[in-house]
Amino acid sequence: MSPPTLLSGFRPTGRLHLGHLHGTLKNWVKLQADYRSFFFVADWHALTTAFEQTEGIARSTREMVADWLAVGLDPERSVIFRQSSILEHAELFLIFAMITPTPWLLRNPTVKEQARELGLIASDDDAELAKINFGHLGYPVLQAADILVYKADKVPVGADQVPHVEVTREIARRFNHLYRPVFPEPDALLSEVPKIAGLDGRKMSKSYNNAVFLSEPPADVEAKLSRMMTDPRRKRRTDPGDPADCPAYQSFHKIYCTTDELAEVDRGCKSASIGCLDCKRIMIRHVLADLEPIRERRREIDARPALVDAVLDDGNRRARAVASATMGEVRAAVGLD
Amino acid sequence: MSPPTLLSGFRPTGRLHLGHLHGTLKNWVKLQADYRSFFFVADWHALTTAFEQTEGIARSTREMVADWLAVGLDPERSVIFRQSSILEHAELFLIFAMITPTPWLLRNPTVKEQARELGLIASDDDAELAKINFGHLGYPVLQAADILVYKADKVPVGADQVPHVEVTREIARRFNHLYRPVFPEPDALLSEVPKIAGLDGRKMSKSYNNAVFLSEPPADVEAKLSRMMTDPRRKRRTDPGDPADCPAYQSFHKIYCTTDELAEVDRGCKSASIGCLDCKRIMIRHVLADLEPIRERRREIDARPALVDAVLDDGNRRARAVASATMGEVRAAVGLD
Repeated sequence: MSPPTLLSGFRPTGRLHLGHLHGTLKNWVKLQADYRSFFFVADWHALTTAFEQTEGIARSTREMVADWLAVGLDPERSVIFRQSSILEHAELFLIFAMITPTPWLLRNPTVKEQARELGLIASDDDAELAKINFGHLGYPVLQAADILVYKADKVPVGADQVPHVEVTREIARRFNHLYRPVFPEPDALLSEVPKIAGLDGRKMSKSYNNAVFLSEPPADVEAKLSRMMTDPRRKRRTDPGDPADCPAYQSFHKIYCTTDELAEVDRGCKSASIGCLDCKRIMIRHVLADLEPIRERRREIDARPALVDAVLDDGNRRARAVASATMGEVRAAVGLD
Repeated sequence: MSPPTLLSGFRPTGRLHLGHLHGTLKNWVKLQADYRSFFFVADWHALTTAFEQTEGIARSTREMVADWLAVGLDPERSVIFRQSSILEHAELFLIFAMITPTPWLLRNPTVKEQARELGLIASDDDAELAKINFGHLGYPVLQAADILVYKADKVPVGADQVPHVEVTREIARRFNHLYRPVFPEPDALLSEVPKIAGLDGRKMSKSYNNAVFLSEPPADVEAKLSRMMTDPRRKRRTDPGDPADCPAYQSFHKIYCTTDELAEVDRGCKSASIGCLDCKRIMIRHVLADLEPIRERRREIDARPALVDAVLDDGNRRARAVASATMGEVRAAVGLD
């Protein structure tokens, strides 16, 4: 029996940071051992919100894929490709659009929340969502096409993406019912994802300018993490603190340090017997060790400028073969052959 | 200077009738002499309303294209192709979807009227249209992609389709403004289209079962037109009538008869000196003469069962070359190359 199929994608965001590493990439690297995996650059999805700022998409794509390879995604084992190179996604999006009631989309909480945050809509009323761009509203339909064109069984997602996967399941069910059973109903693969804080304590994000990038020189990583926010009550070296309120501890010590180190740090913080900088040095050593092989591979990748394009070309070819076979079945089922 | 580009399409409706001949086809045959023309089978559009009944699409496509060729569409001169064979339409649909505000679609009077007629919505309120399927709501976006992927300058349409072309112009303008000038703003080519009544006096339509098909044997055409509705006031042979109230006269005598014949018929009807059947015989002779060469060509086409597929294969190839070149420009403009 062949392993189940897994699919996940990421918008082309350029250089990746520690938030991506722990939130997504380490999980992908682990999953690719057990699944027939497809990982894709969701460049069409980038247009849902960034249609007015598209200059960097191609460069960000290459940068991101270089980081994927650096952390250990294996292009021999997994299919690494670019969404907009596989026109079958657009074809299936169009066909799914024809059978998807608009109200399914208007009530989507994730799109609604995002649209509210972007200032595109004023309230949570379903009718409000009818004001956003048509393709933005159809985001979950495109995602259904992305997933189902490879007949993926598993979709690793964050909790906020679960409603999208639910729409995918509804669309698969409706298609299978209207025509004939072509698609599986994929499951969301919820993984325990640690929340990674940025240097200022907010969620690590490029747009907050609080991120530590995977490809940064060690000295920069060290400098950045050294000035990372800690428990705000430790104004002076002699003030005691609490690791429970320390973003550095919660995001990095907890992930990287040994049980002994954690106990030592906890004691030291609460009794003010260790300063924040010394405390962070314990964690920084581990972070640097974790990043070193990634940076090393990234150096090798950058030394071969044609590599990323070659990986994408090969992945596109393999993705297209699968997508095209599915679309053959879809056209026959719908009566368009 | 090369001639302007023209594009028009038709849903796969199977055998065509006299309503299509005078409403669309004669116009196309005339236009193909002056324009670089693209004529396509809009099979994806068929899914906007007929997604639950798709069995006949492939057969209807072949039947319709056979009639196109029979009336004189020239596959050497014009590009005759099938929409769903050109994935670039779907790709451009997706990209246009990203830049099209949903409110542009919710206020579309043609989609609204159609949805009301189909019982999909209850009122003319813009918000009502948000209840129909997502792809149905996006019909004008797909139409914009159909037109603009060939950079068509002219779109021959009926008056009810003018709002669609307006959306196409708005989308072209928005794309050109957001990225760079890639698309023309196409003009609707409104042609004076005679209204063709069916046998019962309502608009000729296959679904009303009142149509005379182009490929029907002459005896059937004659029998059907002989019992076509005339001025309802002429209950008896001796009752005088008025051609102004006669569907047969308004649809067929006016198109087919000579000035002398029209004068004779007008006089004879108003004075009851000519019976309805004799009157219709004058017109029927012309209709049969008009249909004879069409039927003859249709016989030749049916004798070569591979011909329609060969025409579509060649047309698809030529369409794809143009569409693919446009999409190269689009991807570069958007930043997806």
